[in-house]
Amino acid sequence: MAIPLRQLVEQVGGQLQGDPDTLVSGIAPLDAAGASHVSFLSNPKLRTQAAASAAAALILTEADSERIGSQYAGARILTERPYAYFARAAQLFAALAAPPVQPGIHPSAAIDPSAKVAASACIGPHVTVEAGAVIGEGCTIDSGCVIGRDTVVGADTHFHPRVCFLAGCIIGERGIVHAGAVIGADGFGFANEGGAWIKIPQTGRVVIGNDVEIGANTTVDRGALADTVIEDGVKLDNQIQIGHNCHIGAHTAMAGCVGVAGSATIGKYCTFGGAAMILGHLTIADNVHISSGSLVSRSIAEAGQYTGFYPLATNAEWERSAAIVRNLSGMRSRMRELEKTVAMLTSQNKNEQ
Amino acid sequence: MAIPLRQLVEQVGGQLQGDPDTLVSGIAPLDAAGASHVSFLSNPKLRTQAAASAAAALILTEADSERIGSQYAGARILTERPYAYFARAAQLFAALAAPPVQPGIHPSAAIDPSAKVAASACIGPHVTVEAGAVIGEGCTIDSGCVIGRDTVVGADTHFHPRVCFLAGCIIGERGIVHAGAVIGADGFGFANEGGAWIKIPQTGRVVIGNDVEIGANTTVDRGALADTVIEDGVKLDNQIQIGHNCHIGAHTAMAGCVGVAGSATIGKYCTFGGAAMILGHLTIADNVHISSGSLVSRSIAEAGQYTGFYPLATNAEWERSAAIVRNLSGMRSRMRELEKTVAMLTSQNKNEQ
Amino acid sequence: MAIPLRQLVEQVGGQLQGDPDTLVSGIAPLDAAGASHVSFLSNPKLRTQAAASAAAALILTEADSERIGSQYAGARILTERPYAYFARAAQLFAALAAPPVQPGIHPSAAIDPSAKVAASACIGPHVTVEAGAVIGEGCTIDSGCVIGRDTVVGADTHFHPRVCFLAGCIIGERGIVHAGAVIGADGFGFANEGGAWIKIPQTGRVVIGNDVEIGANTTVDRGALADTVIEDGVKLDNQIQIGHNCHIGAHTAMAGCVGVAGSATIGKYCTFGGAAMILGHLTIADNVHISSGSLVSRSIAEAGQYTGFYPLATNAEWERSAAIVRNLSGMRSRMRELEKTVAMLTSQNKNEQ
Repeated sequence: MAIPLRQLVEQVGGQLQGDPDTLVSGIAPLDAAGASHVSFLSNPKLRTQAAASAAAALILTEADSERIGSQYAGARILTERPYAYFARAAQLFAALAAPPVQPGIHPSAAIDPSAKVAASACIGPHVTVEAGAVIGEGCTIDSGCVIGRDTVVGADTHFHPRVCFLAGCIIGERGIVHAGAVIGADGFGFANEGGAWIKIPQTGRVVIGNDVEIGANTTVDRGALADTVIEDGVKLDNQIQIGHNCHIGAHTAMAGCVGVAGSATIGKYCTFGGAAMILGHLTIADNVHISSGSLVSRSIAEAGQYTGFYPLATNAEWERSAAIVRNLSGMRSRMRELEKTVAMLTSQNKNEQ
Repeated sequence: MAIPLRQLVEQVGGQLQGDPDTLVSGIAPLDAAGASHVSFLSNPKLRTQAAASAAAALILTEADSERIGSQYAGARILTERPYAYFARAAQLFAALAAPPVQPGIHPSAAIDPSAKVAASACIGPHVTVEAGAVIGEGCTIDSGCVIGRDTVVGADTHFHPRVCFLAGCIIGERGIVHAGAVIGADGFGFANEGGAWIKIPQTGRVVIGNDVEIGANTTVDRGALADTVIEDGVKLDNQIQIGHNCHIGAHTAMAGCVGVAGSATIGKYCTFGGAAMILGHLTIADNVHISSGSLVSRSIAEAGQYTGFYPLATNAEWERSAAIVRNLSGMRSRMRELEKTVAMLTSQNKNEQ
Repeated sequence: MAIPLRQLVEQVGGQLQGDPDTLVSGIAPLDAAGASHVSFLSNPKLRTQAAASAAAALILTEADSERIGSQYAGARILTERPYAYFARAAQLFAALAAPPVQPGIHPSAAIDPSAKVAASACIGPHVTVEAGAVIGEGCTIDSGCVIGRDTVVGADTHFHPRVCFLAGCIIGERGIVHAGAVIGADGFGFANEGGAWIKIPQTGRVVIGNDVEIGANTTVDRGALADTVIEDGVKLDNQIQIGHNCHIGAHTAMAGCVGVAGSATIGKYCTFGGAAMILGHLTIADNVHISSGSLVSRSIAEAGQYTGFYPLATNAEWERSAAIVRNLSGMRSRMRELEKTVAMLTSQNKNEQ
């Protein structure tokens, strides 16, 4: 579905230079874009490519527009942050292309009579909504979701298929939860008695802010006594595990396969690379960035980038280096021995001179 | 729902000192507990806090009770293991607060006529129970579970929503399986022929003992020919993968994101920190404890704590240390060279003296 | 169900030596096999065990058959690759033992009128098939699966329970997707604006070839603009995460808990051990083998085995080695200092001589 550039800038902003009636139907990379596409320049290395692009319109900064000058003949949309503009423009095109959502409840859904489902919500096939649940205006609850007892789902939130959102949990507005995610399973809490484990009931909730996205098959456990809290704007990728009583600060993002053990407190604006692992009861400051595959075993009080993974090598080289790592204290002892001997030799030589 | 302290000690045990008619309705931490709460002292560092607690009753050892003396005015429940008592008391309060379970089969469930579902079991919406399955007394099978052909689910076991318990698998009594777990998917077994993989059918089962808890979105594969076995009292957290033909000893506990490759044999009373990974065909003794993020690449015959993860550092420091790790054999060669030279110098100096 | 050896070699091949009317009903290991079993010899260490096996028939190479000679009295099936033969024979026995699949659509399934389901397909309870989906001949779609809008499922593909196969995705013939897998969730793509994340719509698909197997609770994300591609014969174990726009070459196999970040291009015939992690935008050549627990942080241009994990030790030993790793640059400085001093001493000694 094509729209004129006029509509794009009306809805997304930016300053249009060029024919407002030019019709565009989507976003494409600089080198693939044609006469019906919008493209964008955010990486300075691609400036030459941008100048040669056949896109109907280019999203770029005013400075880049001046640098490119007359080499590029299409329309221009000037903005301070072309990449963010691209994201918003892509959202607009995606919304135009999306099949219309039909409000209403599929006849196969099992809705408890005491649940409150907003009239504009869309409830798919085989969904279960338990007693006391509240589902807000504009929500989409896809096939096979389970919405537990006394939960609250904020307006315009979208649960993809087979999400479990369990008893008492709360999510804010405009949330997106991907297929298979489980929010509100019991935390892992036991008392040990003579080797056997006695379950500690997990009676807290998961409380999630606005504009949070949670990936496919990710799990977020309910708190033990208090709540597990995920603040506004947090983005969690797939296959992540968040333990009970964690607190994740606003706008923090975690890539796939990250694990956060119980009672960790993580700041705002942090990022975690894939498969990073955070031990329990730690505190991580705002603006901390953890590299992929790194284990965080101590609290981090200072913003910055932190890393800890064993460097990859050919297997033969790794065998050699790992054998030395296994005996680094032996190497250190030899070094100390050498230092002593050399000090003695030095002193002998001095005495002789 | 409040109960008198008398009822608590009748059901959970311990020696009550104080008014048995005092009504209590739940557990709270020492500093948050009020006149309707029970609290507990298991960490000696919190003794001062316990003495000042406003809890209606304190769970503690006789020794701690004497140490606190008259500083604390509420009721006391004396027990040898306050933390285990707390867990059991919390279970009692949680059971009192839980909504009543209605035995019966939801009309949307698809139950094969040859399956046997106990009259006291509760089968939720959109559940599938296949031919020959047997579901015991007091079981709760939540929304969207799939109970495969010829499975056996022991009495009082609870499957949370969307559990898959696949053909032929067996679980004992009082089990808890959390949402999205998959028990009995095929193990990963292939024969390689000229680069391509030929599937080896996985015809074993998963056989699970009593009092086992399995976390959300955890997967336990069926055996190839023999069975995958999980003994009594094992506790598995979320996002865990257990490969085919593994044998996990009684009361072993694994934290989130652990992976166990096929045919590993793990002892009793072991613990595995989050994201620990155990290679296949290994044998791990009883009472082995593996730290988070550690890869177990060899069998372990001795009880104890084992660790193996790269220490976290600022990215700049890690860059430096990783560059050296990559060339540790070079460093060792230089050390050997130095040792030779120093030995020669030492011998020269001796000759000269 | 027993079949004569004649039928086995007719269907799977190989050269039979022995009575073709001998009835066999399954495969068993060499030491457990009895008069109704077929066993196989692929590991040369088991030759003595094979010679003593009570199996009705042995699958083995001609060379091994000669080595064993007359020690073994049962029938023999000669083949060049006994392990691959075993896999195919086991498939035959498994097919004979499997309950018959009834084509047709369970009445509880919700099938959009515009979807095309082949007459020979079997659609289980509580399945959702959305508009425009095409499900091929001989497919089995188990309980609770969600087949998204405009998807294509090739002939003879089997989706185990609760698979999500989301809008627009394509899978070829003879695929197997295990329970809880999610194919086609959104990739993790955001533009950052002043700390907050703006979602980049994910409009690509997941395109999967023939003979692909995908494990339980594994997730494969759809592409951002282009597609995520999984070529023929790829085998993915459980709990794996494949990011958006990845391209995985034919016959590559990944063990459980592997993570592949977005836009990685992986060659053919590669293998990845459990919990290996591959960073985004990398290129991995054909025939690369990554050990378990290793992080791949750079592209790999040469075939071979690569490793990178911290060796396991007792916790006390690890504490010592980790402390040194944290300060390896200090150790290198001391080494340089020593080298300088020793060079000076050597030169002094020479001057003196």
